[in-house]
Amino acid sequence: MTVEDPYYSSAVHGPYELAEIGDLVLEDGATLRGCQLAYQTLGELNAAKDNAVLVTSWYSGNHSIMRDTYVGEGRAIDPARHFVVLVNQIGSGLGTSPHSLAGPYGRGGFPHVRIGDDVVAQERLLREVLGVEQLALVFGGSMGAQQTYEWAVRFPDKVQRAAALAGTAKAYEHCKIFGQTLVEALQSDPGYAGGWYPVGTGREGLQRHATLFALHVLSNDFWTEEHWRALGFSSAQDFRIGFLGAYFAPMDPGDLLCQAWKWQHGDVSRHTGGDLAAALGRITAKTFVLPISTDLFFPVVDCAAEQALIPGSELRVIEDVHGHAALFGLSPDYGRQVDAALKELLDS
Amino acid sequence: MTVEDPYYSSAVHGPYELAEIGDLVLEDGATLRGCQLAYQTLGELNAAKDNAVLVTSWYSGNHSIMRDTYVGEGRAIDPARHFVVLVNQIGSGLGTSPHSLAGPYGRGGFPHVRIGDDVVAQERLLREVLGVEQLALVFGGSMGAQQTYEWAVRFPDKVQRAAALAGTAKAYEHCKIFGQTLVEALQSDPGYAGGWYPVGTGREGLQRHATLFALHVLSNDFWTEEHWRALGFSSAQDFRIGFLGAYFAPMDPGDLLCQAWKWQHGDVSRHTGGDLAAALGRITAKTFVLPISTDLFFPVVDCAAEQALIPGSELRVIEDVHGHAALFGLSPDYGRQVDAALKELLDS
Repeated sequence: MTVEDPYYSSAVHGPYELAEIGDLVLEDGATLRGCQLAYQTLGELNAAKDNAVLVTSWYSGNHSIMRDTYVGEGRAIDPARHFVVLVNQIGSGLGTSPHSLAGPYGRGGFPHVRIGDDVVAQERLLREVLGVEQLALVFGGSMGAQQTYEWAVRFPDKVQRAAALAGTAKAYEHCKIFGQTLVEALQSDPGYAGGWYPVGTGREGLQRHATLFALHVLSNDFWTEEHWRALGFSSAQDFRIGFLGAYFAPMDPGDLLCQAWKWQHGDVSRHTGGDLAAALGRITAKTFVLPISTDLFFPVVDCAAEQALIPGSELRVIEDVHGHAALFGLSPDYGRQVDAALKELLDS
Repeated sequence: MTVEDPYYSSAVHGPYELAEIGDLVLEDGATLRGCQLAYQTLGELNAAKDNAVLVTSWYSGNHSIMRDTYVGEGRAIDPARHFVVLVNQIGSGLGTSPHSLAGPYGRGGFPHVRIGDDVVAQERLLREVLGVEQLALVFGGSMGAQQTYEWAVRFPDKVQRAAALAGTAKAYEHCKIFGQTLVEALQSDPGYAGGWYPVGTGREGLQRHATLFALHVLSNDFWTEEHWRALGFSSAQDFRIGFLGAYFAPMDPGDLLCQAWKWQHGDVSRHTGGDLAAALGRITAKTFVLPISTDLFFPVVDCAAEQALIPGSELRVIEDVHGHAALFGLSPDYGRQVDAALKELLDS
């Protein structure tokens, strides 16, 4: 028995599959019984089973935006050559998520989920449902990069290549504070009611949550130089309402809070007693670290410091004025830069 | 008849004077009858009346923090040589402010006040109460810089020198969005009640307001490199609660909202039909523009762009890892850099 929210459907997000990957015992102790992952595959697994590419997803995002922005004919990740698996996060709204789970763990009772829980679930999906034991590439941006790093550290034998776009292996304090502002915005809406709100409410907090993204997901120069004009908006206000407000407005606060907590607590050094160098030193995948030049969430300096700890890795800074929101592919040159890096990585 | 808030008193903020500067007709049309400015003077006006220095104040700040951080024996601004006038903003909590004003314009009925209104009131205070017609220097940081620019544009004949620290002559979009997050945090507290709350309430919104400052008032490197250690805190969390939380907790939400609106709407180009170059071109004061290298509110790029429009002005970037919060004088080298710039300016 699930609660219906028309936003989290194929009508909005396009086609996807649901796979039950069994009972998932979470790192923090709770169990998601009959856990379901929502995913989409494109292309075919070849006979050698060596062309699988896993594409992970970011905070508030899903498989369809990753597919439309990063996958396609003639792109670096191309279904004509790769078996592409686009996976949604637990708590993303598609698959097992707070808004739709019935029973004691549903809604306000949804447990904390960690990046590692997602990766364990994804590995089970790949192995048990899709017959994939090796990944030619794991690729994701933002929280998708957190999953990418977790894959490379947790399952080094399964990951040949890794590309971490606009994200870090560990959540650093400044980024965690941003997450905290999101948590406080959503939870302070009186309609949130500790998570036990009727589906479709909590909209005032979501609006403030969009203002917080306006503050941090773009760059100072984006606003000062009025780059919203090139995106077809009539004013800064119009961009805030028409792009950011519209994007977040239909989402479920509880689902976002599940992801926000996961984002804030991502840290591959949990595998090594807090020793980040030791954790990143475990990576055997050929790894490309791809920060965005104007990113306020994951500044180049933080990404580069991690890259220096990953054996044989390389740093490729993506130049773009749109800050973290460059991830949406807002400028034509962005996709070209990412594709060039991914092609170089896939050819290595 | 005023409402008492023990925080806004000499017991907390040290000695100050209150001067009634008459009825102040605000730019947006309302009138603050019997408007009072709170100020402190140090030193003596000399016979030539050419040693007056006006020190303005920032969002949430007051005369005492400016005095303790920027004024003193052997400093660039030295009461032994200068007649120092430290002035508090309208709406700062000291002097005419939402929390304490009785009558139809008090509390939730307090009108919008602009930077220009403050400067007009300050000019009246200086001329009518203190006998000052010329200023050797106007100096302020953040919103104090907004007032400094307003002085130099509005009263060019009265300002010999101007030093704008960590602030801009016009509020740019990114900074305005930060202001909006503050407004939304404070107003969304159910206890705020549209401004008609009992004094001492609205604390939950103030706590979220402190989290927003944690996000933006320091710098990414401050958090990553754990510079809170040098300030005597045991963890990032301890710094957030013990410094930022403690700083804002006793403040009045209505007073902060008055200042936030003023901050968001500061713009000297209101004098010239929106032509910023024309407005800044009116400045005849020798002007130093002093951005802080890691400031997220007023990035060097924005300050430098304005400096290029001010005849004969000079840019001196203050190098400090504490972002905008460097204004509090958190590192010993900060005061030395500011003093060196102010001494050079005062000697020019």
